[in-house]
Amino acid sequence: MEQVFDWLDAHADDRRRAGLSRQLRPRGYDSDLLDLAGNDYLGLARDKRVAGAAAAATLRWGAGATGSRLVTGTTELHSELEFELARFCGTQSALVFSSGFAANLGAVTALSGKNCSIVTDSAIHASLIDGCRLSRAEVAVVGHSDPAAAGRALSTRRTERAIYVTDSVFSVDGDLAPLAELAQLCRENKAALIVDDAHGLGVLGEGGRGAVPAAGLAGAPDVVTTVTLSKALGAQGGAVLGPRRVIKHLVENARSFIFDTGLAPSSVAAALSALNVLKEEPDRATRVLEVAQTLAERLKAAGLSVSDPAAAVVSVRAPSPDAALAWSNDCRAAGVWVGCFRPPSVPDSISRLRLTARADLTEGDIDRAVDVITRCAPR
Amino acid sequence: MEQVFDWLDAHADDRRRAGLSRQLRPRGYDSDLLDLAGNDYLGLARDKRVAGAAAAATLRWGAGATGSRLVTGTTELHSELEFELARFCGTQSALVFSSGFAANLGAVTALSGKNCSIVTDSAIHASLIDGCRLSRAEVAVVGHSDPAAAGRALSTRRTERAIYVTDSVFSVDGDLAPLAELAQLCRENKAALIVDDAHGLGVLGEGGRGAVPAAGLAGAPDVVTTVTLSKALGAQGGAVLGPRRVIKHLVENARSFIFDTGLAPSSVAAALSALNVLKEEPDRATRVLEVAQTLAERLKAAGLSVSDPAAAVVSVRAPSPDAALAWSNDCRAAGVWVGCFRPPSVPDSISRLRLTARADLTEGDIDRAVDVITRCAPR
Ligand SMILES: Cc1ncc(COP(=O)(O)O)c(C=O)c1O
Ligand SMILES: Cc1ncc(COP(=O)(O)O)c(C=O)c1O
Repeated sequence: MEQVFDWLDAHADDRRRAGLSRQLRPRGYDSDLLDLAGNDYLGLARDKRVAGAAAAATLRWGAGATGSRLVTGTTELHSELEFELARFCGTQSALVFSSGFAANLGAVTALSGKNCSIVTDSAIHASLIDGCRLSRAEVAVVGHSDPAAAGRALSTRRTERAIYVTDSVFSVDGDLAPLAELAQLCRENKAALIVDDAHGLGVLGEGGRGAVPAAGLAGAPDVVTTVTLSKALGAQGGAVLGPRRVIKHLVENARSFIFDTGLAPSSVAAALSALNVLKEEPDRATRVLEVAQTLAERLKAAGLSVSDPAAAVVSVRAPSPDAALAWSNDCRAAGVWVGCFRPPSVPDSISRLRLTARADLTEGDIDRAVDVITRCAPR
Repeated sequence: MEQVFDWLDAHADDRRRAGLSRQLRPRGYDSDLLDLAGNDYLGLARDKRVAGAAAAATLRWGAGATGSRLVTGTTELHSELEFELARFCGTQSALVFSSGFAANLGAVTALSGKNCSIVTDSAIHASLIDGCRLSRAEVAVVGHSDPAAAGRALSTRRTERAIYVTDSVFSVDGDLAPLAELAQLCRENKAALIVDDAHGLGVLGEGGRGAVPAAGLAGAPDVVTTVTLSKALGAQGGAVLGPRRVIKHLVENARSFIFDTGLAPSSVAAALSALNVLKEEPDRATRVLEVAQTLAERLKAAGLSVSDPAAAVVSVRAPSPDAALAWSNDCRAAGVWVGCFRPPSVPDSISRLRLTARADLTEGDIDRAVDVITRCAPR
């Protein structure tokens, strides 16, 4: 009876030979690595106000939401966060999910269906891709940030309804989608636009309101934004933001909302508190961009192949999966933790170091990071 | 440009006319409703030890995991919980996901694929169904708890590999799948068995080890169990338990693991603490079963159409979606909170009240619940 899983061993061997094995590396709470790998862009996950609010909420509300949002899993905290998120980002309504992944699944599936066409950028996040796969819609994938191709696909579709689905800031290379242009195209073609602003919220736009407001699309009646609470807001969870009738539709139809336990009160409170900190300290958003740009310029000056960061993500190309892994391991041994992205976590099979800027990195941190990354680079 | 979402209004009208509208009802932290609607089966979500451990972990580790489990999102706490869960349930390994929903998506998709056939029970949880839809496998749905049909589907499949996918305790009616018989059938047909023990963990088996150990399948090399941390353990999150090579495969291949931020430290610590409480107080598991059985017997004696509870879930049939809603609203107005399950949250389009037993319900609570539910029943 062991045999039913024998195929896994062959599969693992293939991955090992291709340099694609992965391993979990547990971290301690007092690690002294310089962290350029996490997505805590504003340095709020460990902020005393944020962690304190989360701890207090756990003691008051309990450790879990205890049920689906449609049963016992909606607390007044959830509603407060939804109200504040919508207000901050300028939309009528918001709906909190247990993760950004779940928010994307819910938004894409509930707003499409088999009478709908979906057109997507080829580099969208895995959770959006899985939403498309689940949607029963006709899906057309167009080239990365290619509005002309997007327009052709939208105008030649065979269904009345259509949505265009894209990341705002692409998670691997950190580049920005041409949102205003895409919205225009959608309007010409009577399509809705769904934008995953996971890496834009807290970083782009006035006071960190995100890439969608920055593109002049806040509150647009034909745009739906998804966000995660797990990056700039330092917590866990996700949300969908948009017109009231869209949110109401998701409450009644999004399977990843209905059939999932509500987000834990602790995470809800953390995101609420982080949002308040961001409102009080909007400079955090500008600082994270500065740090990203400085990192990119200095690594480029050192001869590396570096992306132009539109937000907090800086991507540095590596010649192979093995080289990327060795490079990131060497950086880590030298005290600097960087991300290592290899297939299948990259859309184009190019392996990379992935660095993330944080608002609380000092000039000294940046010097150290640039020094170590450059020194450890493959020749 | 509003028009792109006009179809939502027609859709909402249809649902309203069918009595299927849903609304979020935020609860306060000090609600004095008697809660028979949540899934906090052991009464641990608000246990001081559990909430205290969660609060302490937030202060120590921060509010969020800050990244994917493969990057910065694995803390020593995550590893400890995985070790303890595997030990408790008697498997080689365990892997924590951000929700039970994500654990199910990950297990089903990564262990199947287009060279695999999936056979499923018709009443499995939505997250397993979505896993099947995402899997690219050939999926055959057989009748609810019908091992003969399962055997036929497995033996007539067209692929070498196959898995049978089932809930242990079905989430709507609370009945138990014939796990030992299904495992036997899988073995005869060289198929693997995936069991979602969301409602079994903490309730069934010795000391609450779950339905899979209770069926004599703990540590079986051909069985994979998924659980949620959000019900009996009072927290948030999910896990997959099974042979080491299965877990290793999920780390490298499960998209809902790789492309999702790790579970928040607070929830990890809460689940760990709840597991410890359960080990110290195994009577909680027997008590919740007693409460469920007492509730069912007394409601049946009052003439209602009640399921035989195999675990904590007691289901009471209602004549229509509208009647179910009115019934549950009346109960709530009388101080007793029960779940109301209507399409599409039910597999068979039968609307129901769904009651959940809790280990910390007193005899007085049970009297009150039975009294109110009976009094409010539609005639
Ligand atoms: C672009 C993008 N969307 C969605 C997600 C998923 O969000 P979460 O981790 O909160 O599930 C991520 C990262 O995890 C992401 O990078
Ligand atoms: C049988 C079953 N599986 C999986 C889940 C999903 O678990 P979670 O709520 O932790 O996502 C649920 C309920 O939510 C369930 O009832």
